[in-house]
Amino acid sequence: MLKVFSTLLTHIERPLYTSIMAKSKFEYVKSFEIEDKVLPNCWIVVRIDGQHFHKFSDKHKFEKPNDIRALKLMNKAAIRVMSEFKDISISYGQSDEYSFVLRKDTQLYNRRGSKIMTYINSLFTSSYVYYWKEYFEDKKLLYPPSFDSRIVLYPTDENIRDYLSWRQADCHINNLYNTTFWTLIQKGGLTNVEAEQRLCGTFSSDKNEILFTDFGINYNNEDEIYKKGTILLKKRITHPRSGKKRQVILPLHEDLIGNKFWALNSEILDIKSPEFYEWNGDLPKEILIQLHIYDENDEKMESNG
Amino acid sequence: MLKVFSTLLTHIERPLYTSIMAKSKFEYVKSFEIEDKVLPNCWIVVRIDGQHFHKFSDKHKFEKPNDIRALKLMNKAAIRVMSEFKDISISYGQSDEYSFVLRKDTQLYNRRGSKIMTYINSLFTSSYVYYWKEYFEDKKLLYPPSFDSRIVLYPTDENIRDYLSWRQADCHINNLYNTTFWTLIQKGGLTNVEAEQRLCGTFSSDKNEILFTDFGINYNNEDEIYKKGTILLKKRITHPRSGKKRQVILPLHEDLIGNKFWALNSEILDIKSPEFYEWNGDLPKEILIQLHIYDENDEKMESNG
Amino acid sequence: MLKVFSTLLTHIERPLYTSIMAKSKFEYVKSFEIEDKVLPNCWIVVRIDGQHFHKFSDKHKFEKPNDIRALKLMNKAAIRVMSEFKDISISYGQSDEYSFVLRKDTQLYNRRGSKIMTYINSLFTSSYVYYWKEYFEDKKLLYPPSFDSRIVLYPTDENIRDYLSWRQADCHINNLYNTTFWTLIQKGGLTNVEAEQRLCGTFSSDKNEILFTDFGINYNNEDEIYKKGTILLKKRITHPRSGKKRQVILPLHEDLIGNKFWALNSEILDIKSPEFYEWNGDLPKEILIQLHIYDENDEKMESNG
Amino acid sequence: MLKVFSTLLTHIERPLYTSIMAKSKFEYVKSFEIEDKVLPNCWIVVRIDGQHFHKFSDKHKFEKPNDIRALKLMNKAAIRVMSEFKDISISYGQSDEYSFVLRKDTQLYNRRGSKIMTYINSLFTSSYVYYWKEYFEDKKLLYPPSFDSRIVLYPTDENIRDYLSWRQADCHINNLYNTTFWTLIQKGGLTNVEAEQRLCGTFSSDKNEILFTDFGINYNNEDEIYKKGTILLKKRITHPRSGKKRQVILPLHEDLIGNKFWALNSEILDIKSPEFYEWNGDLPKEILIQLHIYDENDEKMESNG
Repeated sequence: MLKVFSTLLTHIERPLYTSIMAKSKFEYVKSFEIEDKVLPNCWIVVRIDGQHFHKFSDKHKFEKPNDIRALKLMNKAAIRVMSEFKDISISYGQSDEYSFVLRKDTQLYNRRGSKIMTYINSLFTSSYVYYWKEYFEDKKLLYPPSFDSRIVLYPTDENIRDYLSWRQADCHINNLYNTTFWTLIQKGGLTNVEAEQRLCGTFSSDKNEILFTDFGINYNNEDEIYKKGTILLKKRITHPRSGKKRQVILPLHEDLIGNKFWALNSEILDIKSPEFYEWNGDLPKEILIQLHIYDENDEKMESNG
Repeated sequence: MLKVFSTLLTHIERPLYTSIMAKSKFEYVKSFEIEDKVLPNCWIVVRIDGQHFHKFSDKHKFEKPNDIRALKLMNKAAIRVMSEFKDISISYGQSDEYSFVLRKDTQLYNRRGSKIMTYINSLFTSSYVYYWKEYFEDKKLLYPPSFDSRIVLYPTDENIRDYLSWRQADCHINNLYNTTFWTLIQKGGLTNVEAEQRLCGTFSSDKNEILFTDFGINYNNEDEIYKKGTILLKKRITHPRSGKKRQVILPLHEDLIGNKFWALNSEILDIKSPEFYEWNGDLPKEILIQLHIYDENDEKMESNG
Repeated sequence: MLKVFSTLLTHIERPLYTSIMAKSKFEYVKSFEIEDKVLPNCWIVVRIDGQHFHKFSDKHKFEKPNDIRALKLMNKAAIRVMSEFKDISISYGQSDEYSFVLRKDTQLYNRRGSKIMTYINSLFTSSYVYYWKEYFEDKKLLYPPSFDSRIVLYPTDENIRDYLSWRQADCHINNLYNTTFWTLIQKGGLTNVEAEQRLCGTFSSDKNEILFTDFGINYNNEDEIYKKGTILLKKRITHPRSGKKRQVILPLHEDLIGNKFWALNSEILDIKSPEFYEWNGDLPKEILIQLHIYDENDEKMESNG
Repeated sequence: MLKVFSTLLTHIERPLYTSIMAKSKFEYVKSFEIEDKVLPNCWIVVRIDGQHFHKFSDKHKFEKPNDIRALKLMNKAAIRVMSEFKDISISYGQSDEYSFVLRKDTQLYNRRGSKIMTYINSLFTSSYVYYWKEYFEDKKLLYPPSFDSRIVLYPTDENIRDYLSWRQADCHINNLYNTTFWTLIQKGGLTNVEAEQRLCGTFSSDKNEILFTDFGINYNNEDEIYKKGTILLKKRITHPRSGKKRQVILPLHEDLIGNKFWALNSEILDIKSPEFYEWNGDLPKEILIQLHIYDENDEKMESNG
């Protein structure tokens, strides 16, 4: 509700409560709202998933099997969400889905499930549309897209690791399938149905073999963002100009199934403050924007003075 | 139950299940998702509410007490939602909130509460950003806004009527307050705090009196959209060119608390098909767009040939 | 909890609340309890079902297909429940199950689902064991039996009627099956497996035919309590001695699927006070006990003086 | 998720379903039952609590502040529950309440919350009534008692330990209060109201002081079962006759708040099989019954031949 008078009310809310509530005889309907507080001390996952994105990607002529602009836009929207909800420890995205993991001790919206999942979903959607033109430039957004979301609880560190591993394994399986499928079509000249039949019943090794033997493609050399998806982490890095430590949200494309990732980023499960991260090479645009070196509205790099 | 014949039926179901699911050993985490099917045969309300819209309206310099562009944009987004979700019987919006009422027999997403509330919320948000420029033209959207949503069930026709009456009574009370508050400031020269104190403890009749006596304003003459909010209904109207019956979503600004509205629009509670509606006067832009007479992308009226 | 000091606290509960709660640093675990208030304005059904009653009835040598003592004991336990929970409007029992229907406006335990279903279930179970010897006399209860229960909401009068019809139709179907099944065994000399095979795929008409042609049994002449189950209703009747009106819980064995029952007992769905009921013939023991004419502890009729 | 291969799998599941279900046109009401599966990988607590036990203990003239027969009966009923539900790892009882802790990996009733809490509650109640005469002998049970139950989830080992500590701390606080309260009345000649006033605002140390100074009672010497409540654990002990290892449910009255208990009984949190336990002194009746050395029906010790 738009609250015009909210400032005055701060210290007197209780006594007024009844009289504020009893604005009309219809107020009883409010009692039909069911509380949906989620269990304390569990990791909270909010997973967002595109609705009818098969059609959406066709209509907007997304490149197959992966459209880098679409993936970067997903990451941009997720970074926006993560910068607004401080209790998100780690996020993971692939294809048209994104998972946000909230600290197990978060008190966000008093742990009301509906609030948490709808706000995150709404801000993600909003950002997707808002930033569309930054990534698709001349390609106009033809209609408003939408995403659903769900909330899932994981009691232990092992469970939340397995959850993220599940999504990354899914990314791998789908990307290997899609890469082979579209190679069979784009380079092999097969129809969609023929490609589907060719792949029916094949294992990962078979698909690697098809790519390598028939098309000379080594799947291992495909871009990491396609094979691993995107992990978003809060870290402190060195500002390239001031040399000071600054907290940013880093997009990483690496394995999170093995123990190495969790050893290097132990603050996630330990629920500690972001650690320092040594970035090798040039900082990507996503980070430069956060450091206010790249102005996302002007769409150009600032003069480096 | 005492089962005499239980032995006869036993070995079904499982075999397919595992093979479809078992892409990786991490799949077990899917079992942590909790089913949230809502009770059958109840009216389902999804209410959307703007997050931090007090600040949002300040930043975007919304006119006070009501910004017609903002309200029309809310209506536009809601019409988009209603045209996509066929089982929404009636919608009601005011200020920065919108309620969507789904037929009590809807099987949308198998009545899964999270799916219903997040998809509707996401499409609403998406449309709000997408259509922003149509209503605010030169005024740039400064950042992506967001909305939360909740789902509430109402078992009887009386309950759902009372729910809608509750929201319309709320609209009336808030609008009378806001109209008086901003008149005291804009025309009376009071500060916000002075206006607030002036209104503290006043009844509706007092506010009407202030408006009339001090400022010569008859509250009854204020625009209906401000006093009553917006009701969206599916109706069939006569196409102004072809003369044929066409189904559209009508924005109405009238009382829905009394019996008259429900007598005239009995198909809502009876869960019947949209009825014919005799529109008096010129069709507004919102309807012309639906009839493809007004092209929302070109932003101009088609030649009437 | 055993409350020694409850009387003193009545008028001062709030202020003391925090200090009472903070008895130990472990109290935080209480926040893990999830509220489970059920939706207002819906009929609430609590259905109780015997656990492993197939085995239980074997061990206690229940007569087949129906043991009148077991059914009367179920009714006795249900009458006890109904006399304690005033908001139960109607109950229905058959075989080893009982359904209790609470008024849609009940505020029992603030509509907390767990409280409602566990208390009713517990009192039912307790009564079943407590009154066992009254019905089974010399046959000793060999071990403590148990029942599960569930809670289900029904939004409309039609739904709750259909629920009760569902259970009575189930009673009919099972009783016809069981009657035929056991007749084939007891009078036809078939084994259990043979009887099961004989009935496999048969319709009601086939079973009626088997009973009539092969065994000269007209199913329609079977006892009503077996064919229809037991309906418990609150009614006022004439006390046979004082002649005064007294409220009692009546066990009825009649059709509740048709409209007649609901026309004659319209106070149930109208949520009105119990109506007067003209009982024809002698009052059964279940009613005499309620009128204190029959002493259930002495197990004998009082002298009729 | 973007589904490339969705077309391949389609026509499964339904056909069998309808034919199994469709006994009558009323069967649709079954769809109103809401699934209530509890979150996997959490400790499940079912806590049972006596209804109106203040009155119940008065009517049955329970000894104050503690009636050993009543406590032993509670333990007996809990042992019955624990011997039937193999997935209960540990139970804890005090006063008129009992908590049952199920292994975090239990699949009992497919983790349906209602089933779990109603069956356990029902069997507990049933056993309470069934075994009453064993403990109260000549004192007749005057009416069927009842218990409610609730189900609560605890995600971590620390949480479940804190839960049990909470209940044992509660036992301590209440027992110290009640012991002092009843001593003031029984030995000090105070009325209930006077005793209540005397204790109002006192700390534990004050109550210890009253007992010791005014009545020469050292609270530390009170029976452990009163001060600590009863812990039920599955252990293996040496059968006193055969000398073989036998699994039994042991009633212990010791501290479970400190680390010692959990170090000695590490199999509980590790979800391992019951460990060997060296019982010092004579085995109590509760254990002899489980070893079939004491026949609970004959109510006498078997000849030791």
